Amino acid sequence: MDKLRDFCGVFGIYSKPNSKSDVAYTTYRGLFALQHRGQECAGIAVNDCGVISTCKGTGLVSEVISESDIKKLSGHAAIGHVLYSMHGKPSQQDAQPLTFRHGKGNMALGFNGSITNAKKLREELCGKGAIFQSKNHSEVIAYLIAQERLRCGSIEEAVKNAMKRLEGAYSLLVLSPTKLVAARDKNGFRPLCMGSLNGDVLFSSESCAIDSVGGDFVRDIMPGEIVCVTENGIKSDTAYDGRKTSQCIFELIYFARPDSVLDNVSISMARQAAGKRLAVEHPADADIVIGVPDSGIEAAVGYSRQSGIPYGIGLIKNRYVGRTFISHTQGRREQAVKLKLNPLRKNIEGKKVVLVDDSIVRGTTCKRIVSLLRDAGALEVHMRVSAPPFINPCYFGTDIPSRDILIAHSLTVEEIRDEIGADSLGYLSVCGLSDVAAGSSLGFCEGCFTGNYPISGGENE
Amino acid sequence: MDKLRDFCGVFGIYSKPNSKSDVAYTTYRGLFALQHRGQECAGIAVNDCGVISTCKGTGLVSEVISESDIKKLSGHAAIGHVLYSMHGKPSQQDAQPLTFRHGKGNMALGFNGSITNAKKLREELCGKGAIFQSKNHSEVIAYLIAQERLRCGSIEEAVKNAMKRLEGAYSLLVLSPTKLVAARDKNGFRPLCMGSLNGDVLFSSESCAIDSVGGDFVRDIMPGEIVCVTENGIKSDTAYDGRKTSQCIFELIYFARPDSVLDNVSISMARQAAGKRLAVEHPADADIVIGVPDSGIEAAVGYSRQSGIPYGIGLIKNRYVGRTFISHTQGRREQAVKLKLNPLRKNIEGKKVVLVDDSIVRGTTCKRIVSLLRDAGALEVHMRVSAPPFINPCYFGTDIPSRDILIAHSLTVEEIRDEIGADSLGYLSVCGLSDVAAGSSLGFCEGCFTGNYPISGGENE
Amino acid sequence: MDKLRDFCGVFGIYSKPNSKSDVAYTTYRGLFALQHRGQECAGIAVNDCGVISTCKGTGLVSEVISESDIKKLSGHAAIGHVLYSMHGKPSQQDAQPLTFRHGKGNMALGFNGSITNAKKLREELCGKGAIFQSKNHSEVIAYLIAQERLRCGSIEEAVKNAMKRLEGAYSLLVLSPTKLVAARDKNGFRPLCMGSLNGDVLFSSESCAIDSVGGDFVRDIMPGEIVCVTENGIKSDTAYDGRKTSQCIFELIYFARPDSVLDNVSISMARQAAGKRLAVEHPADADIVIGVPDSGIEAAVGYSRQSGIPYGIGLIKNRYVGRTFISHTQGRREQAVKLKLNPLRKNIEGKKVVLVDDSIVRGTTCKRIVSLLRDAGALEVHMRVSAPPFINPCYFGTDIPSRDILIAHSLTVEEIRDEIGADSLGYLSVCGLSDVAAGSSLGFCEGCFTGNYPISGGENE
Amino acid sequence: MDKLRDFCGVFGIYSKPNSKSDVAYTTYRGLFALQHRGQECAGIAVNDCGVISTCKGTGLVSEVISESDIKKLSGHAAIGHVLYSMHGKPSQQDAQPLTFRHGKGNMALGFNGSITNAKKLREELCGKGAIFQSKNHSEVIAYLIAQERLRCGSIEEAVKNAMKRLEGAYSLLVLSPTKLVAARDKNGFRPLCMGSLNGDVLFSSESCAIDSVGGDFVRDIMPGEIVCVTENGIKSDTAYDGRKTSQCIFELIYFARPDSVLDNVSISMARQAAGKRLAVEHPADADIVIGVPDSGIEAAVGYSRQSGIPYGIGLIKNRYVGRTFISHTQGRREQAVKLKLNPLRKNIEGKKVVLVDDSIVRGTTCKRIVSLLRDAGALEVHMRVSAPPFINPCYFGTDIPSRDILIAHSLTVEEIRDEIGADSLGYLSVCGLSDVAAGSSLGFCEGCFTGNYPISGGENE
Repeated sequence: MDKLRDFCGVFGIYSKPNSKSDVAYTTYRGLFALQHRGQECAGIAVNDCGVISTCKGTGLVSEVISESDIKKLSGHAAIGHVLYSMHGKPSQQDAQPLTFRHGKGNMALGFNGSITNAKKLREELCGKGAIFQSKNHSEVIAYLIAQERLRCGSIEEAVKNAMKRLEGAYSLLVLSPTKLVAARDKNGFRPLCMGSLNGDVLFSSESCAIDSVGGDFVRDIMPGEIVCVTENGIKSDTAYDGRKTSQCIFELIYFARPDSVLDNVSISMARQAAGKRLAVEHPADADIVIGVPDSGIEAAVGYSRQSGIPYGIGLIKNRYVGRTFISHTQGRREQAVKLKLNPLRKNIEGKKVVLVDDSIVRGTTCKRIVSLLRDAGALEVHMRVSAPPFINPCYFGTDIPSRDILIAHSLTVEEIRDEIGADSLGYLSVCGLSDVAAGSSLGFCEGCFTGNYPISGGENE
Repeated sequence: MDKLRDFCGVFGIYSKPNSKSDVAYTTYRGLFALQHRGQECAGIAVNDCGVISTCKGTGLVSEVISESDIKKLSGHAAIGHVLYSMHGKPSQQDAQPLTFRHGKGNMALGFNGSITNAKKLREELCGKGAIFQSKNHSEVIAYLIAQERLRCGSIEEAVKNAMKRLEGAYSLLVLSPTKLVAARDKNGFRPLCMGSLNGDVLFSSESCAIDSVGGDFVRDIMPGEIVCVTENGIKSDTAYDGRKTSQCIFELIYFARPDSVLDNVSISMARQAAGKRLAVEHPADADIVIGVPDSGIEAAVGYSRQSGIPYGIGLIKNRYVGRTFISHTQGRREQAVKLKLNPLRKNIEGKKVVLVDDSIVRGTTCKRIVSLLRDAGALEVHMRVSAPPFINPCYFGTDIPSRDILIAHSLTVEEIRDEIGADSLGYLSVCGLSDVAAGSSLGFCEGCFTGNYPISGGENE
Repeated sequence: MDKLRDFCGVFGIYSKPNSKSDVAYTTYRGLFALQHRGQECAGIAVNDCGVISTCKGTGLVSEVISESDIKKLSGHAAIGHVLYSMHGKPSQQDAQPLTFRHGKGNMALGFNGSITNAKKLREELCGKGAIFQSKNHSEVIAYLIAQERLRCGSIEEAVKNAMKRLEGAYSLLVLSPTKLVAARDKNGFRPLCMGSLNGDVLFSSESCAIDSVGGDFVRDIMPGEIVCVTENGIKSDTAYDGRKTSQCIFELIYFARPDSVLDNVSISMARQAAGKRLAVEHPADADIVIGVPDSGIEAAVGYSRQSGIPYGIGLIKNRYVGRTFISHTQGRREQAVKLKLNPLRKNIEGKKVVLVDDSIVRGTTCKRIVSLLRDAGALEVHMRVSAPPFINPCYFGTDIPSRDILIAHSLTVEEIRDEIGADSLGYLSVCGLSDVAAGSSLGFCEGCFTGNYPISGGENE
Repeated sequence: MDKLRDFCGVFGIYSKPNSKSDVAYTTYRGLFALQHRGQECAGIAVNDCGVISTCKGTGLVSEVISESDIKKLSGHAAIGHVLYSMHGKPSQQDAQPLTFRHGKGNMALGFNGSITNAKKLREELCGKGAIFQSKNHSEVIAYLIAQERLRCGSIEEAVKNAMKRLEGAYSLLVLSPTKLVAARDKNGFRPLCMGSLNGDVLFSSESCAIDSVGGDFVRDIMPGEIVCVTENGIKSDTAYDGRKTSQCIFELIYFARPDSVLDNVSISMARQAAGKRLAVEHPADADIVIGVPDSGIEAAVGYSRQSGIPYGIGLIKNRYVGRTFISHTQGRREQAVKLKLNPLRKNIEGKKVVLVDDSIVRGTTCKRIVSLLRDAGALEVHMRVSAPPFINPCYFGTDIPSRDILIAHSLTVEEIRDEIGADSLGYLSVCGLSDVAAGSSLGFCEGCFTGNYPISGGENE
């Protein structure tokens, strides 16, 4: 069974029974604000006094859920999910929330992350007669909660007990007939926060979704914390076992939306700080600083601020190219870069350019962008990367391709510079990540850069 | 959890590995021939040397499975399913075959019928930690087989053991990485037969599908029989426990296609025999015998043959009206009858007409047809029904609406005659069913007519 | 420009302004009853006090027009169209009604038939600056009416003048801001009749649609007649020039629905009469008469009545196969026959069978059916065709393939019998057609059988 | 007949017959780069040695044209079109290119702009028997070219003669069996340029599309110029009549993509120049300059450069919200702004902010953005608009809503400031537009700001 890790987003809302809140529509809007976390499946489950209904499928939120679907999903609590799949096109079966009936009732579950001991757990469960209808980890979590629920008095306790058996990265929302439970893995790999909206309780992978639905940010869920919302209020419990926390540094560098604040860190500020530090570590004699849209813009602004070199717009991104077949056809990839990014000749011509991006993976796209800039008249191109070189796999949900195709795995910085055709190349140092993460209430996992992982991921499938 | 009984159809094919048979395409054609058994979901699962792939969804076979889907489903064994749902619109989740992984491998399962102890089994399974993602009975069967498989040495043995715990009506096809298993419930409620095609083994709910794909009928699967096909040939075993068999009489009267032969009974002949017996039991002084298309045609031909009254065509059915929204809108039902059936005035005008159909449920459609015929100039309308009055519910997969709306439950034959506005009305007697079933190798369940059920159905949900 | 002849169906309704009639929904139902006349495009145009709105596209009525479309199409008069295209898949551009603005207002037009001087007219119009956006004949008619309208005082007069320039077969409905005009070609090739429904005026290609919407048949439109309906009532005028009328005999034999009555002829009766005459012309020593469903059923009943040989059901047609890809794939045609028709072995076995159909075109399907019957145990197969041999092309809208592939064009009856493998073969004689057409108020075109055409079609594209 | 002005984009390519160029695919990619000019319809027409095929419909390029469509569209010359409709949802009928047959052959036509004498021309044409199947101006142009073609020897001459009768704004591509003709209106309202790609000739509304397909910019088409490309090369002719040229200033301010260069003006530079001038005309005492994404970004960068106030990112735009139903529901508009734009609190909090956008139309969106910034902690908000106030309608294709809802039409600048809640408000002066247009080879139409129109538009519908 191939692995299907889930780097995704979750959103939830609990309103009191008989409230006038349109919980499905709020969830729908919340999912839009989290759409960048997954474009392959979307779904909403709504609890209407014990009856849980679901609308889910493959595609963008706007493709999967229609206005009439929203109208049908009435209720007083809801959870939603957007899915990003790392391997192959997901099927209808992979869409979350997963809705199911267990020994003590029914439940819906939305989950974001990757369970590192999923294979072992699945084997154990199968050994006792379980069946698995999909390859994703949510069924594993569902079984654990269902089985714990038989043994203990409440759904939140069942979640807590299940968390003791789960290893890896996960943020979890569980909708039961009377409760909404939110939980975050003991390391705090994936973000999860709480908000409020006219007295309703909100949960979201990122704070930007709480802003977008018009709510107020309340606080982050702590690593290992289980928050349970009922008609009678909010209760918190914890499965935290004292371990060192390890938020995924990649959330700050790449995943999260710039307007989110995760565990006290403003993503925009973190990326600007990366750019500033980069300007200190790798200064350049140049006329203009430009960013690769959209991922390199914030760091470019930071680089400009620190270095005093003017910030400018050097590449225009076509907003419509995303879902065209061009981007999917292997042989036409070269054309896709041209279609996606066009240099602004008048801003580039005759100039020494600092080009900022957040990463170099294979090196091929970067090479083409450097070449585009030279064709547009750039005298020099100084590549700056606002993260250290990727050299290691991730076991916790980040889609890092096989080591062999990571350019930084096999080449030195100077060889990479030569390969991409830049005049100079500078990566942020691993030490420099401390500027990115400054102010965070958590520790960080930097395994993809350093190979030091906070927990074992070796038994993963 | 609401019940979702499955009156459906299954088709399967086993070809040796490395054969040139296009098993998916043969299954696709087989499902077309069984489309009358279920129009709400369709699906095919194909085994390609241990990898089982599925294509399924809601809608007709032609809507769910495209030519390009068929091309992708390569393999050497396949099972297919068409689903009829008795309650509400089924979701994607209800489509079969159900594909899953269990403790000893992976499996696909297609099932036709209704498990009468499903509720109890589901509770037992949940009590041990199982979760159920849908309301249909196939998940129950899947768990039983998966759990038995842990205890015994082969999939066919697991099926046999599971059958000991299942009560009710079911025909079952199971696709494992190396085998195709077919099984029929111990009473033989639902039909299942075996065929051959260029050395490949076929299974089908009805023989018409074996004909349609160009195969040869071999034999019926016996009640309680388990047939297992592997590379090494066909083996038969049985879970039959000596009970009295009870094929569903309604398969003969209504469900099956007229060109099928079920357990030695030609459906067309059975219906003609019903019409002949009806002519003896309820003769009429008339000029023409007509049938309500398509369900009453065969019995009308039989009535004509026996009575000597000429057979004629009196009502034309619109072949396109099926999937229009007209048929779904409550308030527009009256208009739907007109759109669906139009009398052939020139054949009817000035004549005394015998009108034959296979059933009267609510009586409303029948009333409108009688009225249509009178408007078209019929002097007299003598209604003849080729089955006894429906008065009882069915626990074994037949979609008989609640007793209260069954006209024969609350009115006498004379009152029904008055209600539908016919000049006379005659139902086939229960004794007369023996003519319908003449030659069958099995006993019959006539519970819907008599209230005498072969097994208990009382604990059903 | 390739020809795209239109053998299609039209339906229209005129209700007074401010009436409560749902004219779009009535038209929708009318089109369902005419769906057999064209399955490739469908459309409805509605006049709401001068504003004409249209919903049209490629596909079946149920695919093109949704319930919400119907709700949007409010108004007091409407016309609808179903299109059958003889050459290739039609595009959106070919769907009718054609809605356009001309020198004196706006108009919608639905047309059924084939204009034999279309090429010449199109060239004339282009020579004066016209442009043509499609290949179908409706644009030609639209231009003629638009140009005549500039010269004369009313739309009905414009239609009349246009008819003087049009040659060929056509039934025409024109919707103007205040009128509904119906017209039929001077030969009366294509059918068109008038009905009434609660005071509203109906027009339809066939009477079955008037029945189906619950209306009353009033009368046929006469060849060359123009009927104009306004708020003030119905007026009739004529462009008839005394020529011999020539209804298409093929409407009786094949096109029309059996429950329609065209120009005094009941289609069902006509086909039964053909079967009776056939029994006289070509008797057979046989045990059972069967028809090829659905086209040969009525004639088979007639043959049985005349000959005294019992009528029976020998072939079951799969109602779902129509829109599967199987039927479109050249290499899989043989399999398609099996999937579409299955013999009823128990009715056939050991019997001498008379097999009745309405035509033999290429001979391939017929050959396969004969073979199916023999495989099912028929002792003898006596093929009877309820029309004379096809040997000539049609210029008036009937889709007769190129002469070269017409089996009757190159082979004698005995050679055809040998080719299809029947024990005997008999076609209806040309003289026999008089029985089919008995009682008609019109003359007939039998050009496809005799080569004698009522008007020249030679200049057609 | 309601007006349907076309602010759209065109792209064309001419390759020699038997070339290996994939002209449809190049056009497809060109349309992607022009997608911002129209998202409501898309289409491509391809000429394959005289046979012109079309694929078009409603929606984005990626929705209308599939990879398999592109494969079917083989040929050596092509034109493409994206449509923006100002009034209501366009229908299939409005999609361009318009393909038609005329007196001397066949032709496809793609057109961008608005014909101010369309009503008069349409009436004249109808008076001579023309019919119009849509409301758009392309049919008018088609008739004129078709009619001129009857009188003169070539398609390019016909285009030239037609241009003498057309008033208004238009860029035009015409595909004939042997030629590709490009023409630009005599005032030069709408842009059109020429490029080359491996020896093939390209035309495009904007230079960004030439870049995007990998081509080289050659030159702009001059006002009134007709360029005709054949197998034998490129010929230029002109219908220019000496009038003052008047490029639409709004193309520079809003329509065109920043990476385009129109008539010697770099759009990005023009917008930065507007920002710089704005900083001179309306300085502010502030801590940060932010732009409303995406329309105000370039001007904000210019303002920052000129003023020395640091540029920053203050608002994050959700890239996925575009096609959700939220944006279409009137009552939910307020929620849509929140969903679309989220302030970056950490960049805004405690700061005096200069907010730059390119326009204020109704004022409602602007008011909400100012309020969002204040909620995010901005101490002061200084609104700066990089264009003069809109106060007049446009007759040449710009979608300016009715004067009554233009806030600048009824309120003074101080009243607008008060209404939107800003601390100060400054618009670019009309004089300042000279900085925007600096270097252009053409004059400009600034009618929407000044009410001085270069030609009469009063007779427009």
